[in-house]
Amino acid sequence: MVRRIAVIGGGSSGLTSIKCCLDEGLDPVCFESSDDIGGLWRFKETPEADRSSLYRSLVVNTSKEMMCFSDFPMPGHYPNYMHHSTLLDYLRLYAKHFNLLKYIKFQTTVLSVRQSNDFSNTGQWEVVTEDRDGHKETQVFDGVLVCSRGLTSPVKPLSAFPGIDRFPGKCFHSSDYKDPHIFHGKKVVIIGIGNSGGDIAVEISRVAEKTFLSMRTGAWVLSRLSTGGLPLDFNKNTRLNALLLEVLPHALLNWAVERHYNQKYNHRLYGLQPSHRILSQNFVINDELPGRILQGALQVKPNVREFRGSTVVFVNETIEEGIDAVVFCTGYKAIFPFLLTSNINNPVGKVSLYKNVFPLSLEHHTLAFIGLVSATGPVMPVVEMQARWTTRVFAGLNKLPPVSVMQKLSEKDWKAKLKRHSCPNKASLNVDYIPYMDSIAKEIGVRPNFLWLFLTDPGLGFRVMFGPCTPYQFRLFGPGQWAGARQAILTQWERVTQPFKTRPIPQHKTSKLHYWLDLAGGMMLIAALIYLQKIKTQFSLT
Amino acid sequence: MVRRIAVIGGGSSGLTSIKCCLDEGLDPVCFESSDDIGGLWRFKETPEADRSSLYRSLVVNTSKEMMCFSDFPMPGHYPNYMHHSTLLDYLRLYAKHFNLLKYIKFQTTVLSVRQSNDFSNTGQWEVVTEDRDGHKETQVFDGVLVCSRGLTSPVKPLSAFPGIDRFPGKCFHSSDYKDPHIFHGKKVVIIGIGNSGGDIAVEISRVAEKTFLSMRTGAWVLSRLSTGGLPLDFNKNTRLNALLLEVLPHALLNWAVERHYNQKYNHRLYGLQPSHRILSQNFVINDELPGRILQGALQVKPNVREFRGSTVVFVNETIEEGIDAVVFCTGYKAIFPFLLTSNINNPVGKVSLYKNVFPLSLEHHTLAFIGLVSATGPVMPVVEMQARWTTRVFAGLNKLPPVSVMQKLSEKDWKAKLKRHSCPNKASLNVDYIPYMDSIAKEIGVRPNFLWLFLTDPGLGFRVMFGPCTPYQFRLFGPGQWAGARQAILTQWERVTQPFKTRPIPQHKTSKLHYWLDLAGGMMLIAALIYLQKIKTQFSLT
Repeated sequence: MVRRIAVIGGGSSGLTSIKCCLDEGLDPVCFESSDDIGGLWRFKETPEADRSSLYRSLVVNTSKEMMCFSDFPMPGHYPNYMHHSTLLDYLRLYAKHFNLLKYIKFQTTVLSVRQSNDFSNTGQWEVVTEDRDGHKETQVFDGVLVCSRGLTSPVKPLSAFPGIDRFPGKCFHSSDYKDPHIFHGKKVVIIGIGNSGGDIAVEISRVAEKTFLSMRTGAWVLSRLSTGGLPLDFNKNTRLNALLLEVLPHALLNWAVERHYNQKYNHRLYGLQPSHRILSQNFVINDELPGRILQGALQVKPNVREFRGSTVVFVNETIEEGIDAVVFCTGYKAIFPFLLTSNINNPVGKVSLYKNVFPLSLEHHTLAFIGLVSATGPVMPVVEMQARWTTRVFAGLNKLPPVSVMQKLSEKDWKAKLKRHSCPNKASLNVDYIPYMDSIAKEIGVRPNFLWLFLTDPGLGFRVMFGPCTPYQFRLFGPGQWAGARQAILTQWERVTQPFKTRPIPQHKTSKLHYWLDLAGGMMLIAALIYLQKIKTQFSLT
Repeated sequence: MVRRIAVIGGGSSGLTSIKCCLDEGLDPVCFESSDDIGGLWRFKETPEADRSSLYRSLVVNTSKEMMCFSDFPMPGHYPNYMHHSTLLDYLRLYAKHFNLLKYIKFQTTVLSVRQSNDFSNTGQWEVVTEDRDGHKETQVFDGVLVCSRGLTSPVKPLSAFPGIDRFPGKCFHSSDYKDPHIFHGKKVVIIGIGNSGGDIAVEISRVAEKTFLSMRTGAWVLSRLSTGGLPLDFNKNTRLNALLLEVLPHALLNWAVERHYNQKYNHRLYGLQPSHRILSQNFVINDELPGRILQGALQVKPNVREFRGSTVVFVNETIEEGIDAVVFCTGYKAIFPFLLTSNINNPVGKVSLYKNVFPLSLEHHTLAFIGLVSATGPVMPVVEMQARWTTRVFAGLNKLPPVSVMQKLSEKDWKAKLKRHSCPNKASLNVDYIPYMDSIAKEIGVRPNFLWLFLTDPGLGFRVMFGPCTPYQFRLFGPGQWAGARQAILTQWERVTQPFKTRPIPQHKTSKLHYWLDLAGGMMLIAALIYLQKIKTQFSLT
């Protein structure tokens, strides 16, 4: 009998979850509360309650070759970093190509998900939905994939700012922010240096009279342009770098990486330097913030101590008068009130999910969270990998370890994360991209076999190991293998360079010497690393 | 008898010329056609005929410590790269500090400047002016300083674009451009990659549906942020670098400098690479252009071949349809119709001025052009240096060489420039900042005496030689010496870092080792360079 799976949410996670269900012979029914696919990537002119919201200018901060689904490369002419509307186009192409739309019930809200009465025998779930006519329906499913971020409510930590209740200006959350023009000629304080805080501050600084970006802990702010102008993640998110991260001492790596990025602009000089080291937390992506600081269009400020009318007092005792507006870029909180089983409706900030996916507290692993993760890399390949795994578990093709083992592994993992992140919410969501992908890929059996690759297809092996860790790598072997994966890897550079080719420049002859030097250097590096790892293993064995 | 000098134009060149006249005991009368100082730095909401025009967002592309007048440092709290309105504030401070306003006749237009009847005896000029009431006046002056760029008429090379006359969209020149909002949702082609072309294209790309930046020859595009986030010119415009430029082979330097900047973004990949080498022409300053290209918001295009209705055909045969607007960022042409003496009213693009200042064709050197120059560095210190020199020549304190010698030197100079610039207009205007400043400083007797400096004040000598070539250097010695110059040099770093100090960051202890290594390396470098120059001199002597 084909197992029926409820997929909650028709965003990028929902779409790939439907596809993975189909790949594993499951029968998905996707519930999407709005009238279209795309989830958070669908721009709305006015913010909606309980949904995260895009600003008009938002550009994705992972690059196209890194962030696509593993068996569906993005069109070559797409820019490397795309506007949110282009990403939505891609999701439409994906849905069309794999014929996913017919599995989606639009304008249907999930009211509740509860364990069926015979859950301990069947592992089934009772899902109550409501369509746009108010018609309620109860259905039983063999599995549930929670692909929405639940109700995402804006976090506005007002209580941390004495006097904010008497602030006469306007007080926004980033979720209210669409365009900068209402800030024309105003004095604005932006609170919080996340990705949206940086973007919004830069944008407002182009029209406002004065713009202050207030931050508690600072941030490492990196440009999308990496060495040579290549996309940052395409350049840096390689298996070689992941290996270095594992093998070399973090103190040394932090020093080297911080030095590299401080060469571009000294984070201390620019007032951005955070208290944490560069590799211990996700960084902020922003191409224009340093330039705006250098031009004096935007001032970095420490945390706000208090509001006195329209005067803002910062913790370093500096005062800015006549502030017209405050924008809180302080993030969102995800809650899942429709999950009626206690212990699973608020899984953030705790040790409650195995690999951020399966609730540890359930007797049967027939419910999973897809996308409840913040990776040091693109999110879409992560959600796809989670969906591949969970659907195989639901279909009985993969087994999970006993709960006691999962519990132990999760606690170990949690402790390691808490060392890096002071905030438990961040700790529970954050994962290192390549190790996390590999750990799930290993469960499924789709982690690339490097020895085999180097022996049978050294050119490909070289690209997989030293090139960008593009998602196609996880379609070379095992279940869900895709015949186009090899070709996709061999042509990934072409798709990166294609959008640049708009003005022909005559080719000069160049010496090939440096290629050989690079190759020789690379080989020596691998040898050294393998040797180091061997020593490390020996030490940990003795 | 005190000599009367007519100063034409009350912009930055006019202001410093008035001051230099006063310093040399001359009697200046400044004619300014508008009702305020500031010249091209004064923003007007609507463009005016025969004047160059600023766009609202323009940020100066030289940094404050490099571009200030040599005896009047900018306030420490000014940002390093300032908005045009801040620069105008600085000019107001300068005018007030040196009490210059009373020498300016506002709303008085110079109608003509002609040699007096007894010019061959007196070297005097007859200047006819008209005030706002239409009242004309003729006055005789002992000297004339032409401190305006004359009538600057926008260059729109329409004849080079077949079909532009039937283009149904709007056709602008950069001088018409103030704000991007009229391009909202449009498809726009910007023609020309100068500083304004780059700025305007980036700004339009934030609101337009599609933005194409078309360029004939490409450009080296550099960010204001140099290593460590320091201002580009503050970091690179050093005497050490000028010495390297003189001593080392240009092929090697070009290779090294191009490699350095291509590390940031490969100009070939980004479609920007020009046919000329990086050191042979001025580069374009733009912080955001590469990021906009990477995000696909702006497409680089080759030159336009023709217009077919609203369709634009580029020389690589690509076609863009439905173009709504074209913006010509193709510069200005300076002409001086009020100069009635032939041979001097159109001095650009010819060998007609000695050191870009004194017309070679005149019998008496009582007329000079101030600011008719495009330097590889800030313009304001250059015009100040020219004004210091010319006023001393007018006052009889400096002598010019015989005309035959000036002619020979100018022709030699012209030939060298034509090697680097294919366009004679560019060739006649362009000068290398430090060598040009030094060559005039030597005439006045204010070039720093390095041997003396290193012997008597090595800390200062070190800063003058290896630090940024800030204008204060030319006030250490000789006529016009300023008692504050030494202190200004010693505190220049403080004024650079001051505007950044808006968020305190706790200091860590760092090792001082690298300072000593830097110092030792620097010393070895000087020795090597001196040795190289010696060898070079020997070779050229034998």
